[in-house]
Amino acid sequence: MPVNLKPPAALAAVSGIRLGVAQAGIRRPGHPDLTLISLSPGTRCAATFTRNRFCAAPVSIAREHLSAFAPRALLVNTGYANAGTGTAGTEDALACCRAVAAELRCRPEEILPFSTGIIGMRLPVERIVRAVPGVAASLSGEGWLDAARAIMTTDTVPKGASRTVQGAHPPVTITGIAKGAGMLEPNMATMLAFIATDADIPGDLLRDLCTEAVGQSFNRITVDGDTSTNDACVLMATGGSGVQAATLLEPFRAALREVCDTLAQAMIRDAEGASKFVTIDVVHARSVDEAAKVAYAIARSPLVKTALFASDPNWGRILAAAGNAVQEPADIATVSLHLNGVCAFRNGAPADGYTEAAGVAAMRRDEIQIVCDLGHGAHGARVWTSDLSHEYVRINGEYRS
Amino acid sequence: MPVNLKPPAALAAVSGIRLGVAQAGIRRPGHPDLTLISLSPGTRCAATFTRNRFCAAPVSIAREHLSAFAPRALLVNTGYANAGTGTAGTEDALACCRAVAAELRCRPEEILPFSTGIIGMRLPVERIVRAVPGVAASLSGEGWLDAARAIMTTDTVPKGASRTVQGAHPPVTITGIAKGAGMLEPNMATMLAFIATDADIPGDLLRDLCTEAVGQSFNRITVDGDTSTNDACVLMATGGSGVQAATLLEPFRAALREVCDTLAQAMIRDAEGASKFVTIDVVHARSVDEAAKVAYAIARSPLVKTALFASDPNWGRILAAAGNAVQEPADIATVSLHLNGVCAFRNGAPADGYTEAAGVAAMRRDEIQIVCDLGHGAHGARVWTSDLSHEYVRINGEYRS
Repeated sequence: MPVNLKPPAALAAVSGIRLGVAQAGIRRPGHPDLTLISLSPGTRCAATFTRNRFCAAPVSIAREHLSAFAPRALLVNTGYANAGTGTAGTEDALACCRAVAAELRCRPEEILPFSTGIIGMRLPVERIVRAVPGVAASLSGEGWLDAARAIMTTDTVPKGASRTVQGAHPPVTITGIAKGAGMLEPNMATMLAFIATDADIPGDLLRDLCTEAVGQSFNRITVDGDTSTNDACVLMATGGSGVQAATLLEPFRAALREVCDTLAQAMIRDAEGASKFVTIDVVHARSVDEAAKVAYAIARSPLVKTALFASDPNWGRILAAAGNAVQEPADIATVSLHLNGVCAFRNGAPADGYTEAAGVAAMRRDEIQIVCDLGHGAHGARVWTSDLSHEYVRINGEYRS
Repeated sequence: MPVNLKPPAALAAVSGIRLGVAQAGIRRPGHPDLTLISLSPGTRCAATFTRNRFCAAPVSIAREHLSAFAPRALLVNTGYANAGTGTAGTEDALACCRAVAAELRCRPEEILPFSTGIIGMRLPVERIVRAVPGVAASLSGEGWLDAARAIMTTDTVPKGASRTVQGAHPPVTITGIAKGAGMLEPNMATMLAFIATDADIPGDLLRDLCTEAVGQSFNRITVDGDTSTNDACVLMATGGSGVQAATLLEPFRAALREVCDTLAQAMIRDAEGASKFVTIDVVHARSVDEAAKVAYAIARSPLVKTALFASDPNWGRILAAAGNAVQEPADIATVSLHLNGVCAFRNGAPADGYTEAAGVAAMRRDEIQIVCDLGHGAHGARVWTSDLSHEYVRINGEYRS
């Protein structure tokens, strides 16, 4: 059951972007599993890819293609990740690119391939190639919501967000979709995110905006600490509105951040087995890096996560997790902990007036904020995570067939 | 259900060591929760403590006492960890030391205090002090097995091991006991281990032997990646046999390693919710450090651990975890994976002749060896871990009362 998450009611079209979906029958028949996103000529793209050293074939190829040509289309398949598949996997991904290029009358190097699903199995290239004409025929500017559904794997709710940036004529639109419900972790994860705008953005600025937006959103979530082999975020700027992003940079940046935050939060709200949406704020750290490390140590701790699942205000486990990540010198006497606004631990000792009953009441809610105040600096970081439930074990322990 | 773990049939007495237990009613009445270990005059001690920066009061005190005096006794309580208790917690631990010192007619600084249990609650000092005469009265050289039982928390099986080192007259004895079934992780964990020998060992050598033994055993296990606030391993050498360890150093070192390995493995076999005992060997790494990092990345991955629970030969998750920890430059084309001897992945691609059926058969066993061959160096490391089961979530999610 996702935590307070609904499908997007509507997603705004972005001039210059068309999306199509098809049922290729890649792993299981009967649902869309192939998505094509076509980009108008002149669209600029920036992307962030997984840092996993054993990245999948499509990641290597997408990175290479992106560095050489302006992409004309993105092809996304679910079912199989095409990771751990050796040189055959590289050939398979290239064959998919060639099929799309033939259909769209462009070069194979202008296609970016993306795959998500089970590692170590070959792509059924013939079935994908056979489905390419159909997916191309379905391309439409209104295809965002269908695409959000077609890229889902263990997701239970499609994920998308749109924002318009006022202050220009016409207003600029930003729309994004994403998938990913487990194996989520910074430096990407089993997540794919595709975000487009009709603003006109030069390449350098686009890359900066992409890095910045990913760093503050998709790289600030964790479900289980694993960074997957496949994942990627692509930011596309078609220029279709004729508006230069540079003329409204701060509102544009804020709107982009909102889209990315919404998508990142949606992944956690729909995380495998999640029953809580948890925000961890580490404040008064010596650096953003220290704050993020401590926040992640808390967010990743299975002991903290099982306590969250049980609505147990077990702040001792939070303290222990923080104590493993905080930088030396660290004095527990400056540390305080707050659970949904209830101070459980203040300046190194259980807080005066804190009661277990108050802690339990705070932890019963399905949205939990943990504030860990290190009390030795001026920096902070926020990380979003989920709890560790029986359902997580069931989903990830179920045999793959 | 522990994995292939039985209580020790007997534990050999160590000349110079006496152990006593008592029911102090610290958190729950009706079972032993206080243990005293007395050391004959002249006994030397070395210890390794948690590296958690928010360590418990008894850890700070034990470290300080050990640096100033040769200890005469160790006092261990279960129930409460006396961590996160501020200056009051320090006072409480010192009060316990004073009570033992008065009973044994020594200085409070000659007592090392150890606590394990719930973080953040004060010790019931009065009840502990009241139980001190009783625990002292019960001191006996034959008390090892009772002590192994009295230090248990969520452990289901007492943990102990004895070895004799031949080649000297009389033979030298090593006996150790340990507790800890969750929150296990290198750099100590919610674990306590007390190991004694009647060999005569100078302080410097004793410290080296302690560091070395801990590094290869207790610091090579993980259940859930959390290092606790409390934990410690103490190595005691009474000299009661009159034999210098230096005269039989290699056999002594091997026997000590066996005792520590047995205790460390026992903790994993009895890990919270464990249904598998898992050995992870990373080989052909560039350094022991890289090998250990990759082994830990695999051992800690919740996705790997849930797959282990399900007997699912999901080697893609192992590959993804390894890819997050391996050092650059890393080429997947040199990597191979073996599951209980079955090669699933060889030189960057699914292994020829590997079948899912063979993988499933290998993973159904309750003892699993994963070999990850990085193929780019000459070093290796071994880590022991357990799976992530429904039972783990139940145990750690249950409310503390």
